[in-house]
Amino acid sequence: MNYRIAVVGAGAIGLYYGGKLAHAGLDVHFLIRGDLAEIRQNGLTIRGKDENFHIAKVNCYNSTKEIGPCDLVLIAVKATSNEGIVDLIPPLLHERTMLMTLQNGLGNEEFLAGHFGAERVLGGLCFICLNRVSRTVVERFDYGHVVIGEYGRPPQARTHDIASKFKECGIKCSIAEDLALERWRKLVWNIPFNGLSILAGGIDTAAILADKDLHRSTTALMQEVIAAANQCGHALPITVAAEQMKRTETMGAYKPSTLLDFESTRPLEIEAIWGEPLRRAAAAGAQAPRLQVLYSLLKSIDRVRQAHEIEKRSS
Amino acid sequence: MNYRIAVVGAGAIGLYYGGKLAHAGLDVHFLIRGDLAEIRQNGLTIRGKDENFHIAKVNCYNSTKEIGPCDLVLIAVKATSNEGIVDLIPPLLHERTMLMTLQNGLGNEEFLAGHFGAERVLGGLCFICLNRVSRTVVERFDYGHVVIGEYGRPPQARTHDIASKFKECGIKCSIAEDLALERWRKLVWNIPFNGLSILAGGIDTAAILADKDLHRSTTALMQEVIAAANQCGHALPITVAAEQMKRTETMGAYKPSTLLDFESTRPLEIEAIWGEPLRRAAAAGAQAPRLQVLYSLLKSIDRVRQAHEIEKRSS
Repeated sequence: MNYRIAVVGAGAIGLYYGGKLAHAGLDVHFLIRGDLAEIRQNGLTIRGKDENFHIAKVNCYNSTKEIGPCDLVLIAVKATSNEGIVDLIPPLLHERTMLMTLQNGLGNEEFLAGHFGAERVLGGLCFICLNRVSRTVVERFDYGHVVIGEYGRPPQARTHDIASKFKECGIKCSIAEDLALERWRKLVWNIPFNGLSILAGGIDTAAILADKDLHRSTTALMQEVIAAANQCGHALPITVAAEQMKRTETMGAYKPSTLLDFESTRPLEIEAIWGEPLRRAAAAGAQAPRLQVLYSLLKSIDRVRQAHEIEKRSS
Repeated sequence: MNYRIAVVGAGAIGLYYGGKLAHAGLDVHFLIRGDLAEIRQNGLTIRGKDENFHIAKVNCYNSTKEIGPCDLVLIAVKATSNEGIVDLIPPLLHERTMLMTLQNGLGNEEFLAGHFGAERVLGGLCFICLNRVSRTVVERFDYGHVVIGEYGRPPQARTHDIASKFKECGIKCSIAEDLALERWRKLVWNIPFNGLSILAGGIDTAAILADKDLHRSTTALMQEVIAAANQCGHALPITVAAEQMKRTETMGAYKPSTLLDFESTRPLEIEAIWGEPLRRAAAAGAQAPRLQVLYSLLKSIDRVRQAHEIEKRSS
């Protein structure tokens, strides 16, 4: 069966993965709001490491009603926009429509499950460095693989089926036996690096690692996140911290996605990446003093910045 | 005996306290570098809450050799400039010259003691909100009292003598039985508020208290600093945290001195306020995870900012 696929959220992630699937011939339909006219007119260009292609005719729509029922919906809006998609999803649903969130952090599967039923929900963890160069051009700097898992249950036949389809379209893909564990594993990296890169003055991973005190903060934050995951019942080994530090050393100067968001004054996914893990840690009785400080600072910085933006726009 | 007094460091603190003493008729001599011509020509104006005076003729010099030996030297340079004053002090010394640091944080008495002998050294903790409005005008927004103590020993006859002189000149003043304990007590406030005000996006004390997560970070940092002080042998009661939070609520919207420094791109006293307390806590075996994160972030932000400044100047 060839899936009918919808992509909700046409930022860098949605356009890239949706674009890869469409370019390979799958039946992909994009919900696009602000940039609809540009993408209709100019198509979509994906470029970067070892790939470079243009889709002249993108199936794009400004309402999900026009798209209609699909087999698979890829959710790639910012986690901060979740409330805004509740009313957009129903026109895309038939009885067995799968909803796969490609979003960051914790709480997105739960959000979808709460509104549309747990059995529909999958998660895809994206390990990729992208940048939206213009309204119609997405550039991939590095990586690209996706780890796909089921919400609250082990992989099913459909999980393998999606992974196969992704692979056929040239997307590196693996399957998570335990999606929640993999979400925490990814947070072990995102919580320190995405947060410190902003709070330390807008610096990349290489600059964080080169500073002995930030290096120390990073390792200690990783250990806090692993301890919190364990306390929440996810058996993440403590060795993950050292593994991820070592891997990061080979990455070069990399700007975490939240820093790119910050520099482009896009909303920051603070609740998904810091707030929700902190609340789950606290509920499970785990101490996470550094995470708590990061969360409080990031929330404040984001609020201050939004106030500045509003001021700028109104002046 | 009327002291011959030298003031080394003509920022807001040095000009204010030196100005108060000079205005009351004491024999005060200022070492002034950059602003010498302006202050010679226009004198010095102190204004603010309940006071407003002008000193037309300020005894100011651009070398300590011109000043010569004094009885009391007030040190009011930024702690970041300590190395720079080592060679400036000797011309001011006679056998019993007292050196009183009005600087922030930990390590300044030790620095002076190491170079000039412990018996010369006193500390004055300044509880004051000042702003250098122009080269020749200092404005006091609030407070003003000084807590004076001896380095490494209880108050002496001279300590009481200095306090009396300060009081005669209209400076509210009290004596610390244990200067080191009072330094830690002040840090219980400075470490969270001075640090968070910068890192949370440039916000004042009222904004910090109004945010429940920053409020929580502040209280937790205070508790960390108290625990570190205790571990270092200073019997600071845990109730100090609640006392200081309560006092801060009555202060209104107050910008901590390090935030004012940050906004004016002056050097930040990171080692004195965060680095040295952290090192002492670690040496005594105290956990201070939040302080460690703050220290690493502030150091990085300061370095990034300095790099930008250099770039701006050279372009």
